[in-house]
Amino acid sequence: MTSDDIARTAVAETTSGKVPGTSKPIFPRLCLIGLGLIASSVAWAAKRDGLVDEIVGTARSPETMARAVELGFVDRAVADPAEAVAGADLVMLCTPLSTFAELAERIAPNLKPGAVLTDAGSVKHTVIKDVGPFVPDGVHFVPGHPIAGTEHSGPDSGFADLFKGRWCILTPPEGTSAEAVDRLSEFWTSMGAMIEVMDAEHHDKVLAITSHLPHLIAYTIVGTAVDLEESTKEAVIKFSASGFRDFTRIAASDPTMWRDIFLSNREATLEMCQRFSEDLTALQRAIRWGEADKLHELFTRTRAIRRGIIDANQA
Amino acid sequence: MTSDDIARTAVAETTSGKVPGTSKPIFPRLCLIGLGLIASSVAWAAKRDGLVDEIVGTARSPETMARAVELGFVDRAVADPAEAVAGADLVMLCTPLSTFAELAERIAPNLKPGAVLTDAGSVKHTVIKDVGPFVPDGVHFVPGHPIAGTEHSGPDSGFADLFKGRWCILTPPEGTSAEAVDRLSEFWTSMGAMIEVMDAEHHDKVLAITSHLPHLIAYTIVGTAVDLEESTKEAVIKFSASGFRDFTRIAASDPTMWRDIFLSNREATLEMCQRFSEDLTALQRAIRWGEADKLHELFTRTRAIRRGIIDANQA
Repeated sequence: MTSDDIARTAVAETTSGKVPGTSKPIFPRLCLIGLGLIASSVAWAAKRDGLVDEIVGTARSPETMARAVELGFVDRAVADPAEAVAGADLVMLCTPLSTFAELAERIAPNLKPGAVLTDAGSVKHTVIKDVGPFVPDGVHFVPGHPIAGTEHSGPDSGFADLFKGRWCILTPPEGTSAEAVDRLSEFWTSMGAMIEVMDAEHHDKVLAITSHLPHLIAYTIVGTAVDLEESTKEAVIKFSASGFRDFTRIAASDPTMWRDIFLSNREATLEMCQRFSEDLTALQRAIRWGEADKLHELFTRTRAIRRGIIDANQA
Repeated sequence: MTSDDIARTAVAETTSGKVPGTSKPIFPRLCLIGLGLIASSVAWAAKRDGLVDEIVGTARSPETMARAVELGFVDRAVADPAEAVAGADLVMLCTPLSTFAELAERIAPNLKPGAVLTDAGSVKHTVIKDVGPFVPDGVHFVPGHPIAGTEHSGPDSGFADLFKGRWCILTPPEGTSAEAVDRLSEFWTSMGAMIEVMDAEHHDKVLAITSHLPHLIAYTIVGTAVDLEESTKEAVIKFSASGFRDFTRIAASDPTMWRDIFLSNREATLEMCQRFSEDLTALQRAIRWGEADKLHELFTRTRAIRRGIIDANQA
């Protein structure tokens, strides 16, 4: 038994009691590029469930790599991404979207034939545009998006149950190997996620309203509060009621990641934002002119959506 | 022992084991006008902690009154509010804000000298304007606002711990008896709340940004989603991510209550909404023109507010 084996056994025993190696791993070697919340959660889950034999990690910052090794969710850290991907059966990009094009260009020559290349980015059409052209023949490119997260970031924030009961959306471009999509699906479902395959543009439109616009709004309203005069701001923090408290949690999300999401999903986010602004203006007007019935009617309609979400088990 | 006594003893024993009557109640008779989430929670907490001897309830709907008696959080239900308040030491208005003026006029002649009249309304300057003129000499009018709630409403939604660790803001007009304010404060703190006394206008401005605007925005964005074409709407419900999911919970709040809040706190809500819209427009513009640094800078600033709220133990 090597020291790596011992480390992995210890992880497996303390988290689920499973002994690794009792079933064939889905991807013998996993390479994680970027070692934040998503990557560390994937690593913990994949180790716990014996889905991989070895995890190689790479990150821009030496401190992050050292921390990942120290925490034990990667077996090796390699500073050069091109070197890190060599021999990997699954390569997952877990860095902010703005880094994808350059990373793809760097790692492409070293990708192993037959390997699956995926990512965890929140916008999919730009990933296909940025990464697609660099993918060599014989490598299977299957973009993915696990709809899971917390307001925490960095290598210490991951946990094996992050994806349990959450959706992971795959957006393979036309002509992608069905076998590769199936294998990646099995990897995610083994970590507890549910899989949906859809078109990248549809994904980006849906996420614009369910995730990107809510984050944009949360950042905005918390920013509006920051700009209030000091005495009001103190009271805002002290008496932070349910609505605002939820918004501050959302607005504590990783700034680089979200900057990239908005810039990548620019058109869909701006389109949804425009619709929202029109609707808000209409509501403002109804308040100003005391249109009680109009307000009551809308507030009643919005209750139904909540029931739909509760029925869909996403509440 | 009367049957009322037996009912109360049973409630006390099953919830906290306390036997009522072992310490002097703060208000021997409590009258609750309106029997929804707040009133039923006050009733359960006051009974559990022996803060009152008797609770009389009144509501517009006979079904609500019957349910309150059946659940056991009121000892008697009386259809006529004027009759219900007779002999009460504490009268609390727990109905939507639009009902306050008419209710105050009806109950005023029957209020007991020395009684405390309070409310649980979310906007305070209109309560003082609507109720104040009717309050007879010798009755102490102490407006209040427990900052607590859930998206549920009605007599079945209450629970004794709703106010535990939450703020209750009192906004007594100038000249209010300090003894009455102290007695009402003791009532709320005995139920687990923390008390802050402030000016009604300041309250309304702070709540406009921490509660009223967030609710307005949540109603708006969920409404925007409702109006999407059917195929997108289905996906929105299915893949409802963290941001949107939180908004739907807020947007499931009681429609009548919130209609009245927006119309009552019209000026402060519109002022905050205007600031918010300007800030959102600036962000939209930054996204459209790809101003990455501006986005990153704002998203970093908003994180600090979250830390402030966590430090203030409101997260």
